[in-house]
Amino acid sequence: MVVKKNFHPLKVWAYIKNQVLFVLIWSFVVWLLFHFTQEKALALNFTPIGILGSALAIFVAFRNNSSYGRWWEARTLWGGIVNSSRVFARLVITFTDSHSHRENYDKNRSEAFKKSLVYKQIAWTHAMRLHLRQQNSWEEIEAFLDKEEYELIKSKNHKPNAIQLLIGQQIYDAMANGTLGGFDSFQMEGQLLALTNYQGGAERIKNTPLPRQYDYFTRVFVILFALLLPFGLLGFFTSDILIQLSWLIIPLSVLIAGVFIIMERTGAANEDPFENKITDVALTSICNTIERNLRELLGETDLPEKTQPVNGYLF
Amino acid sequence: MVVKKNFHPLKVWAYIKNQVLFVLIWSFVVWLLFHFTQEKALALNFTPIGILGSALAIFVAFRNNSSYGRWWEARTLWGGIVNSSRVFARLVITFTDSHSHRENYDKNRSEAFKKSLVYKQIAWTHAMRLHLRQQNSWEEIEAFLDKEEYELIKSKNHKPNAIQLLIGQQIYDAMANGTLGGFDSFQMEGQLLALTNYQGGAERIKNTPLPRQYDYFTRVFVILFALLLPFGLLGFFTSDILIQLSWLIIPLSVLIAGVFIIMERTGAANEDPFENKITDVALTSICNTIERNLRELLGETDLPEKTQPVNGYLF
Amino acid sequence: MVVKKNFHPLKVWAYIKNQVLFVLIWSFVVWLLFHFTQEKALALNFTPIGILGSALAIFVAFRNNSSYGRWWEARTLWGGIVNSSRVFARLVITFTDSHSHRENYDKNRSEAFKKSLVYKQIAWTHAMRLHLRQQNSWEEIEAFLDKEEYELIKSKNHKPNAIQLLIGQQIYDAMANGTLGGFDSFQMEGQLLALTNYQGGAERIKNTPLPRQYDYFTRVFVILFALLLPFGLLGFFTSDILIQLSWLIIPLSVLIAGVFIIMERTGAANEDPFENKITDVALTSICNTIERNLRELLGETDLPEKTQPVNGYLF
Amino acid sequence: MVVKKNFHPLKVWAYIKNQVLFVLIWSFVVWLLFHFTQEKALALNFTPIGILGSALAIFVAFRNNSSYGRWWEARTLWGGIVNSSRVFARLVITFTDSHSHRENYDKNRSEAFKKSLVYKQIAWTHAMRLHLRQQNSWEEIEAFLDKEEYELIKSKNHKPNAIQLLIGQQIYDAMANGTLGGFDSFQMEGQLLALTNYQGGAERIKNTPLPRQYDYFTRVFVILFALLLPFGLLGFFTSDILIQLSWLIIPLSVLIAGVFIIMERTGAANEDPFENKITDVALTSICNTIERNLRELLGETDLPEKTQPVNGYLF
Amino acid sequence: MVVKKNFHPLKVWAYIKNQVLFVLIWSFVVWLLFHFTQEKALALNFTPIGILGSALAIFVAFRNNSSYGRWWEARTLWGGIVNSSRVFARLVITFTDSHSHRENYDKNRSEAFKKSLVYKQIAWTHAMRLHLRQQNSWEEIEAFLDKEEYELIKSKNHKPNAIQLLIGQQIYDAMANGTLGGFDSFQMEGQLLALTNYQGGAERIKNTPLPRQYDYFTRVFVILFALLLPFGLLGFFTSDILIQLSWLIIPLSVLIAGVFIIMERTGAANEDPFENKITDVALTSICNTIERNLRELLGETDLPEKTQPVNGYLF
Repeated sequence: MVVKKNFHPLKVWAYIKNQVLFVLIWSFVVWLLFHFTQEKALALNFTPIGILGSALAIFVAFRNNSSYGRWWEARTLWGGIVNSSRVFARLVITFTDSHSHRENYDKNRSEAFKKSLVYKQIAWTHAMRLHLRQQNSWEEIEAFLDKEEYELIKSKNHKPNAIQLLIGQQIYDAMANGTLGGFDSFQMEGQLLALTNYQGGAERIKNTPLPRQYDYFTRVFVILFALLLPFGLLGFFTSDILIQLSWLIIPLSVLIAGVFIIMERTGAANEDPFENKITDVALTSICNTIERNLRELLGETDLPEKTQPVNGYLF
Repeated sequence: MVVKKNFHPLKVWAYIKNQVLFVLIWSFVVWLLFHFTQEKALALNFTPIGILGSALAIFVAFRNNSSYGRWWEARTLWGGIVNSSRVFARLVITFTDSHSHRENYDKNRSEAFKKSLVYKQIAWTHAMRLHLRQQNSWEEIEAFLDKEEYELIKSKNHKPNAIQLLIGQQIYDAMANGTLGGFDSFQMEGQLLALTNYQGGAERIKNTPLPRQYDYFTRVFVILFALLLPFGLLGFFTSDILIQLSWLIIPLSVLIAGVFIIMERTGAANEDPFENKITDVALTSICNTIERNLRELLGETDLPEKTQPVNGYLF
Repeated sequence: MVVKKNFHPLKVWAYIKNQVLFVLIWSFVVWLLFHFTQEKALALNFTPIGILGSALAIFVAFRNNSSYGRWWEARTLWGGIVNSSRVFARLVITFTDSHSHRENYDKNRSEAFKKSLVYKQIAWTHAMRLHLRQQNSWEEIEAFLDKEEYELIKSKNHKPNAIQLLIGQQIYDAMANGTLGGFDSFQMEGQLLALTNYQGGAERIKNTPLPRQYDYFTRVFVILFALLLPFGLLGFFTSDILIQLSWLIIPLSVLIAGVFIIMERTGAANEDPFENKITDVALTSICNTIERNLRELLGETDLPEKTQPVNGYLF
Repeated sequence: MVVKKNFHPLKVWAYIKNQVLFVLIWSFVVWLLFHFTQEKALALNFTPIGILGSALAIFVAFRNNSSYGRWWEARTLWGGIVNSSRVFARLVITFTDSHSHRENYDKNRSEAFKKSLVYKQIAWTHAMRLHLRQQNSWEEIEAFLDKEEYELIKSKNHKPNAIQLLIGQQIYDAMANGTLGGFDSFQMEGQLLALTNYQGGAERIKNTPLPRQYDYFTRVFVILFALLLPFGLLGFFTSDILIQLSWLIIPLSVLIAGVFIIMERTGAANEDPFENKITDVALTSICNTIERNLRELLGETDLPEKTQPVNGYLF
Repeated sequence: MVVKKNFHPLKVWAYIKNQVLFVLIWSFVVWLLFHFTQEKALALNFTPIGILGSALAIFVAFRNNSSYGRWWEARTLWGGIVNSSRVFARLVITFTDSHSHRENYDKNRSEAFKKSLVYKQIAWTHAMRLHLRQQNSWEEIEAFLDKEEYELIKSKNHKPNAIQLLIGQQIYDAMANGTLGGFDSFQMEGQLLALTNYQGGAERIKNTPLPRQYDYFTRVFVILFALLLPFGLLGFFTSDILIQLSWLIIPLSVLIAGVFIIMERTGAANEDPFENKITDVALTSICNTIERNLRELLGETDLPEKTQPVNGYLF
């Protein structure tokens, strides 16, 4: 996620250089052609190109709107993961403690249970992040699981599903041995359900790109527009007075086409929020927040450092 | 679902060839007429056509917006089916196991129950897919049902409803014989309810097209625009200097009308997401994911292969 | 609901004839005036009319968007009624059957209860349809109620409310006499609640039109635009070359104003989805689906015929 | 709420007269200036004004969209109040009656409880209306409360909160004395919760206007546009042929600026739905519906008259 | 939050002065250049600039739409906090009182419990406000907590999480000692869950700005547009008649660019609703409402004063 408010010009340049160079070269070629041939017939009337531009602006706006909608939904789903992780941890802690007046209460067992279950939820969160970004560094979740559990999880195709099954089983074991009781499992299930729904939502965004046709044709039309633009602009410089200024079509082409290209690129950047790019939803940072919050709820004080933006980017 | 990022030009051509050929031929005819008559009165002023184009762009954007909204809602509903299927399977497994300390626990009965119920959920998912795509290959669900159940389902009009009734009955049988107990059925009902809601949502999209008037008139107006366009473009080539370039109205007509036609077609393609077309929501792939996930949760390891895109299309 | 993909030209003509004839006659009058006076001052510049057209397109798009939003919400609410009716029927059946191992189980009583309660839900659905369309043919629900119940319902102002109260009372009678038990009523209440919410949503759309000002002024502005348009188009035919083509303002006026008029009419058609018009949400068909589904769940096989579109319209 | 489909021209005139007179007078002044000075330099080119108009149309559309969204949300929240009031009343009645087979059932006590609690819900609804519209006629709720309760409520700052606390307390009193029992209170709480959420939503809309900057600058820009418009239109009447028609800038200014002004005003009218204006959500009518529905559910037959529109307005 | 309907011109001026001065100076420079060189080649054709303006209006509308969506979502989340705080307080009061007929009821203990728990909810609300606005004046919550609790909370990184854990623990202590009983905790958990979700939503908006690229490029494009505009306007004043009016490009530039700049600034102002700026969601006022409402529900009468707008701004 980009968090800085202003961009260094060099960074912006790197971001848009290919497209801008293409327009620059193309408009320069058109101008050269005109300059040496002095062929006024090269100049197209601008009006139809203008109509094309208006229609294009509407289509790009539609694409960017959908694209931003996906990105924001992805962020909202992960916001839900933060919420449900917190609630789940709070329930684990208060429910386990609420049985402390019972006869068969075993403080060590209960404390171990709390830590183990909350750590599994932290593991699930990190696993979701790795799963969505298609990274294989499963050792990141090793510290939050028993050795045996970790081996089991590693052997499964779908790690987050497998961790959640473990969480579910541990809850019912605790219900059986008296660490939990009453309707405790009932309420915890509500959070497991919510987490599965958030998980499925994130997978949906990951696996279902914006219909490729919108993306493809928007890109193609912007290029066509950029190709036609210098001819349209030439029309304004065919009079005798202005003909020596015809080179102005080069900066004007770059500027006008640039606006469309950048808007198209900006929208495209948000289409896929789980690709380990700088425009990703900041999963690493969100997982860090969850880990810090949950471990503080457990009463731990040696929390991991808060993830900080690097060069204005937060991963 | 289209998953490839770029299209082979030949494929794109196949997709839009009818419309483009129509514009090509029509603008050629207009140009011929002009070329041989040299009748400048054929040239319309471009401005009213431009207004038409702006209005059209707005209307097409509205239609595409609604159309994409339908497609994405359909995908989201099936995402919900993935989620609820996973949660249901997890509940079946952990709830059944949670009674293992009871006196009347019968491991064989419980294991058979888990498999039978989770398989019914897989069957329901495949049945929903066949039902929505109006396919009759019910043999695809045979492996997930008892012979008797399969015959019963086949005799019903609405297969998914009938499978869900079976699931419900099996849960209460298990409550009665002690395989399940307490509030287990209560929580499972939550997922059956969610699944019925997703099912109804998908049927709604299937049975209720985008109001036909929007579709019809958008199509008609795009054609009218394409018919008028060459006359409007002629206006730019009636001066003595440019008249020999009047053939340019042909590529310009194809280009400008093409943008509108392709945008209109692109929107139309997403209108109906359950028609077994390449632009469908990828139901086959989603059902495969559910089957793989649920069977892995049951502990199976001989999972079916993951569905892969063929030629960039995922069904 | 319109389900056919293409419209017979005569039908389309009937739909838009008033508006088109108005533009036709008006533009003819303007042309006659110009033709006989040859007064070039009649021609307005097209640009301000173009601006008016752009603004109008945006306003019409807003109105149509809101109007389609209402229609689709109405359809979604009825989709919810389908879902909740199915779930309710399934709960009635599986819950009643789940008590078959109890001592005081009375098969006849239970079967009668199932049929009576599911039929009441069918009656409620039909009553909602008649209520929303303000039709008084209450005999349509007679077959689904006891004679006494039917007389009671007929005496009430708000029939659907009264049927739902009956359903609620019958559930608690069944809880009292052992036909149901445990938390059965608790879960059924969830569906009664959902149905009341869908009902209230549909009544809201029925009773609260789109703010009339939007509707009224959009209509007025389209007419003003159509009145100005021929004068604006005249401007293109005042040169000596083109003056003999001035009659072209007539087809051009019809075409351009026609696009705006049809878009405005198309939006207006979806504003009110419960008026027994061809553009209604297809309530009769949806009620038929519910009746067929619920009676099949009860095990009945002599289901009513599926409602089919007539002339491409589904009511 | 405006319910009539057409407006009397005089009413429309009253609605927009200030704005239209302003444009009329201003364009007349501009025309006079031009007429007597014959200064062609007064005429601005129309194109930049056209761009301003396009941008303005987009901004006005955005504002109207948000404004209508607020109004419709307000209506939807009150639709929710209708639904939850009905469900609450049905629960009170069926739950109370469901205990009639118990030993300590006291018919008089139960009937009094039903009426008292349902009437309190009616009181709450009317109190919400008065609270939102900042009216002080609390005597309207006197008939639905005991004398003592009414005095208590009147002494509180936030009447609806206080009534709901009374409702909650009465439920638990009834749980204690056996009028209610089991999980009755649990289910009723669901509706009290929903009602608090609808209440909070309505208060949010009441207390948080659309950001004033949007409102203010939209208004200012429309006025600036109206001020510039006559100069822009003059440009079309500076030629020798058309100069005697220069008075046409007056009706054209009124017409074009009028469209923008009316659209801006129309949007502004829906911004605040709880102000006791004719464009309000029809709270009085909705409260009347709730009172009629709830009293019919109680079995009463002397219901208050249905609120009817007066002069096409429903309050 | 801005609550006044009109702005004092001086305030508006302060708000937009930088941008307007920039356009003023730049257009003056352009005009000077033109005035002294009389170089007609300085004048660009307006049409491409117009297209740029149209595209820009669409992009600015998209940004403002998203920006307002964030602001309104932030307000809605805090509206949810109001609702859930009220419901939670009502539940605490009615549930505690409902056990007054029990043997082990201790009035003092129960009253202290009610006050302590409701005050903790008030503390949570104020803590959320300070947390979101990154203020450190934690003494504002001191009055609502025990001394020991306050020290504990102050030692934690995430104060609202820690307060909610305290609330949860106090509920289960009360369940254990008989102050609460039955399913009381179950229903209270529903509100704690809702509050965590609202909290997470507000943190999401706080921590995830609108993608910076949209913000940055929209700003850059508006500036580019403002830079080009005076050259485009010059084109209308190069004829001999109008050349002495060429200074008009200065006010026209300010006006047209001003509309775009103000719209862009207006949208930017709503992007971040929790920054202690005048355009913030009015958290201080909302917290005051919650405190007043909850203390009135407890029966207190010495409520804090209602927060009033200062100079038309509500914080």
